[in-house]
Amino acid sequence: MSVEDIQKAKQTVPFSRESLESVLKRRFFFAPSFELYGGVSGLYDYGPPGCAFQANIVDAWRKHFILEEDMLEVDCTMLTPHDVLKTSGHVDKFSDWMCRDMKTGEIFRADHLVEEVLESRLKGDQEARGLVKDANADAKDDADKKKRKKKVKEIKAVKLDDNVVQEYEEILAKIDGYSGEELGELMVKYNIGNPVTGETLEPPRAFNLMFETAIGPSGQIKGYLRPETAQGQFLNFNKLLEFNNNKAPFASASIGKSFRNEISPRSGLLRVREFLMAEIEHFVDPLEKSHPRFAEIKDVKLKFLPREVQQSGSTEPIESTVGDAVSSKMIDNETLGYFIARIYLFLMTIGVDPTKLRFRQHMANEMAHYAADCWDAELKTSYGWIECVGCADRSAYDLTVHSNKTKEKMVVRQKLDEPIQVTKWEIELTKKLFGPKFRKDAPKVEAYLLGLTQEELESKAKDLKDAGKIVFFIEGIEGQIELDDKFVTIEQKTRTEHVREFVPNVIEPSFGIGRIIYSIFEHSFWSRPEDTARAVLSFPPLVAPTKVLLVPLSNHPDLSAVAQEVAKVFRKEKIPFKIDDSGVSIGKRYARNDELGTPFGVTIDFDSVKDNTVTLRERDSTKQVRGSVEDVVKAIREITYNGTTWDEGTKSLKPFVGQTE
Amino acid sequence: MSVEDIQKAKQTVPFSRESLESVLKRRFFFAPSFELYGGVSGLYDYGPPGCAFQANIVDAWRKHFILEEDMLEVDCTMLTPHDVLKTSGHVDKFSDWMCRDMKTGEIFRADHLVEEVLESRLKGDQEARGLVKDANADAKDDADKKKRKKKVKEIKAVKLDDNVVQEYEEILAKIDGYSGEELGELMVKYNIGNPVTGETLEPPRAFNLMFETAIGPSGQIKGYLRPETAQGQFLNFNKLLEFNNNKAPFASASIGKSFRNEISPRSGLLRVREFLMAEIEHFVDPLEKSHPRFAEIKDVKLKFLPREVQQSGSTEPIESTVGDAVSSKMIDNETLGYFIARIYLFLMTIGVDPTKLRFRQHMANEMAHYAADCWDAELKTSYGWIECVGCADRSAYDLTVHSNKTKEKMVVRQKLDEPIQVTKWEIELTKKLFGPKFRKDAPKVEAYLLGLTQEELESKAKDLKDAGKIVFFIEGIEGQIELDDKFVTIEQKTRTEHVREFVPNVIEPSFGIGRIIYSIFEHSFWSRPEDTARAVLSFPPLVAPTKVLLVPLSNHPDLSAVAQEVAKVFRKEKIPFKIDDSGVSIGKRYARNDELGTPFGVTIDFDSVKDNTVTLRERDSTKQVRGSVEDVVKAIREITYNGTTWDEGTKSLKPFVGQTE
Repeated sequence: MSVEDIQKAKQTVPFSRESLESVLKRRFFFAPSFELYGGVSGLYDYGPPGCAFQANIVDAWRKHFILEEDMLEVDCTMLTPHDVLKTSGHVDKFSDWMCRDMKTGEIFRADHLVEEVLESRLKGDQEARGLVKDANADAKDDADKKKRKKKVKEIKAVKLDDNVVQEYEEILAKIDGYSGEELGELMVKYNIGNPVTGETLEPPRAFNLMFETAIGPSGQIKGYLRPETAQGQFLNFNKLLEFNNNKAPFASASIGKSFRNEISPRSGLLRVREFLMAEIEHFVDPLEKSHPRFAEIKDVKLKFLPREVQQSGSTEPIESTVGDAVSSKMIDNETLGYFIARIYLFLMTIGVDPTKLRFRQHMANEMAHYAADCWDAELKTSYGWIECVGCADRSAYDLTVHSNKTKEKMVVRQKLDEPIQVTKWEIELTKKLFGPKFRKDAPKVEAYLLGLTQEELESKAKDLKDAGKIVFFIEGIEGQIELDDKFVTIEQKTRTEHVREFVPNVIEPSFGIGRIIYSIFEHSFWSRPEDTARAVLSFPPLVAPTKVLLVPLSNHPDLSAVAQEVAKVFRKEKIPFKIDDSGVSIGKRYARNDELGTPFGVTIDFDSVKDNTVTLRERDSTKQVRGSVEDVVKAIREITYNGTTWDEGTKSLKPFVGQTE
Repeated sequence: MSVEDIQKAKQTVPFSRESLESVLKRRFFFAPSFELYGGVSGLYDYGPPGCAFQANIVDAWRKHFILEEDMLEVDCTMLTPHDVLKTSGHVDKFSDWMCRDMKTGEIFRADHLVEEVLESRLKGDQEARGLVKDANADAKDDADKKKRKKKVKEIKAVKLDDNVVQEYEEILAKIDGYSGEELGELMVKYNIGNPVTGETLEPPRAFNLMFETAIGPSGQIKGYLRPETAQGQFLNFNKLLEFNNNKAPFASASIGKSFRNEISPRSGLLRVREFLMAEIEHFVDPLEKSHPRFAEIKDVKLKFLPREVQQSGSTEPIESTVGDAVSSKMIDNETLGYFIARIYLFLMTIGVDPTKLRFRQHMANEMAHYAADCWDAELKTSYGWIECVGCADRSAYDLTVHSNKTKEKMVVRQKLDEPIQVTKWEIELTKKLFGPKFRKDAPKVEAYLLGLTQEELESKAKDLKDAGKIVFFIEGIEGQIELDDKFVTIEQKTRTEHVREFVPNVIEPSFGIGRIIYSIFEHSFWSRPEDTARAVLSFPPLVAPTKVLLVPLSNHPDLSAVAQEVAKVFRKEKIPFKIDDSGVSIGKRYARNDELGTPFGVTIDFDSVKDNTVTLRERDSTKQVRGSVEDVVKAIREITYNGTTWDEGTKSLKPFVGQTE
């Protein structure tokens, strides 16, 4: 069955999230964790098919990125001490805005609340204007579809002024960009309180999304569960550079769980508290962000939603090759463009629908101040467009902050072909005066001064000149410290350098595996037009949880014996398979199989006993062919692992019209 | 190089933990986490070779157990709510004993402290008796070797009474089995305090080893990081059984991180706070613990250290086949024996030294009260014998406690060939009386009564008969509840049943991947007798981090071009390789390679340019052969993935004596 045929079937039987969820639940792809104990929202367990699917996607990722690009994989701990995440900015900034109802104790996530209340008012306005019949029915349907527990229980048909409608729409378009203070102002201005009681809420407070814990007995060390895998990679930069024979550029990569204590998780697998990430940190020369393999991908054509288009209020993407996108400067540099294309190619390998994929550039106010450029691969689902992969140029931020904090250099040293003249601020300490003045604190003061950046040195040099002294504070030392030019001199000096030293920039492609998995569930799901109760998950064979269903036609011992022999061949070839020797009809077994997304069925009948031939069935088209066990296994191997098409892979096998479904 | 040759080399150059650690550090197999920030003890990051080694071992485990035995893999969350771990017993029992020095605030793990102090007194006694020269030097050496920070700083040469020596030795032999109270008594009796100051310590207090956190905003839900992966598997039992078409026995499996907040971690990778586990839960009929594939492994011969041998004070293992061990009842049942043998075969596949492996049975006081039998696969390292795999028959404990707590049945139903008569206690409620009496609490009271176990019903029936009433308490309902026989009747009834219902028993093989990895590091490590500075890690090719080092003889562009072509072949064949085109000598590159445990070197020289042949070098023997790229790749593939020997795999290639090391 061709891609077009499946698209046609999808149009005949429209997508229903309820049907998909029922299949995913019935086949135990995943389920809420701790259901026996009432569950904990935002936590999910993967059952056998979900777990195998996840493992295959991780395996494909490892081959596509780590092996193909020779990246350095590391596995760092999830427990992370406070100081590391303080430096990275997570302790101060990794938070959402929540507001509490002082009477009921209920907690709302501020941006979600504002969004929902304004949306419901707009719906009420539509009803009052006679543009929709029953906004409540509409909203309920919407809530069902999104599986959210709506805060707004009832929509009132109240007409709004035209300019208010326009204001609401503008706010909703920018809802992701507001600060807590701004959200608080909106809530006051538009009288947004507890949607049920109307009660005024406390102003939004930052709620840090990291899970906190204590490491060691008596809670000596405050720690968190990591919110991303990136920090472990940054902290190991010097070891990785050395492992790479001190050559740059190079990339590290990490696959592992991260954590985010969502205020009120919803949207199933898309917003969870514990999730699998795969992250790459590509360390590159800030002056040279070209990529040696750029030519290989420059003609890949993608749908882009750049900043300008979004600012104009449009969501119509631009189609362009990556080559053009980089040369027109829409994408900041070649390396970033290279990874965007590689992300696209990976997503194609694992079954993402290309018509439901776009690359959206971050708006200036979405991006961290240090980022040079950032693009998200967004996948379209019934929940809307979902950010599944981020690809950011983080500049030198991460290495710089850790290096400043720990006073440990994190740089690449490059021998220069020609020596160069470099002018720098340099500080000199009259060390013999430090001991008598500072005693046990002397090393701390010296380390502080020697760790000053160029900018800081320039400013301190000015102080020394203007005021005759420099003044500063050091954590852990009481009072301010004053030093005059007997203690320090700060001067600009020009030196000849043979080695260039630079802090590399980081290009960071970061994958949310759970979100990608759920999107592929939606993209792969369809129902057979001839029998809409028969659902299919059309996973690519490479990532399908199981590759082959082995079906003896009946429970006759002769057939079981052959099935065991065929099973041995699959086991030897390391092709994951399942035997289904349950008594039910072949049709029922195939149907179960289609719901599990198993691409191939191998049927054993009485002819198999005689001549060692078996039937091979393809899941999507239900086409069947026949051949020897060896030829069938070979076809399966070629199609599954080497990307051969069905027609090409089975051309030596005979068409078969025997059993009906 | 044969196994015997390596053993000989190991005898020539004795194992040195310092050399091993220096290699592991230099090659970034692993490193303390957050070293830049001063580190956090008990947390380690895996660098590229360690990470690849771990991934390969996990992959081998998945194939050996999950695929080969058709297990149901699940991936459950690490965050676990309090109630689940309260039921499992971890909240109350998963703890070590710690005692605090009230003056200094220092915290000691009680059993370790008693052990260390008594050991040092015994050493002092030995010195006093003139049996060792300098117990301090000896102890320091010991501390270095074990990389522990010794609490006992100085050993005093004091002779002890003979009977005291005997008492100390008896205590040390049983040190793992003492309760907190008993440890406290030992500390008083033998005057064990802070070893430095002599200060008396607080009596041992239980310190729970789980990391605690709060889930959701405002800390509504108390949770922990899981201490094992098992609970997620138990909680999903009903879903897994249904997935398995309601057939038992079956096994689930899970690979993932678990956490243990050690009081004072030591011994490097062997005792850490965050670690990778692989666990199997095999659910089996309590009346039928035979195993269909037992015949396949019954002749496997292993070294056993059963309970009786240990009780006799011996550590001399018994050699026996698994078949004999089961039929003599040394091992409780066939399924347990089957898994013990499978564990052994797995450990052999991934490079454990069979002479450094034994299976030790748990002593009665080590085992949980519910366990039927338990064996540990212990690996010998320079830290002593280390428990690396546990294999326990946990009876029906886990499913029973969760089922009792949640009132959810967790049973297997089996259609009986012949119906049977079953006599059971049954309770009947006069429901119409419950509403008026208990109002909103009525459903709670009914659920409580209907959830009573057979034992409880029997006892309540007696109360009802003797006292005319039953009396009980329910959490959340104030005061005691009294009911007479107008409300409830409890009677024994005999019924004909066509279906047998049973709670399966659990056989649980549980692997500590990090401990296995470290043990294999030790087992695989040796130095070349001809140059002891040249160390080798002789990993089996299957699990070696990288399979092939690709070495162009020089930086000549012709050689680089061929190297790129050869690289393409390896990439296509999905054989992990690294190119080393650094300028250093071939010998140096091979040496680096040997430290990384890469089994094969492929050298490209000027003949390669002419005739497309390359040299293939074997790591352990340094033997070299020559052939076409295709033949060499084929040999590597056969040896690495199909277990072919070097001699067999390279028989079509020509011996080569060209470059010297």
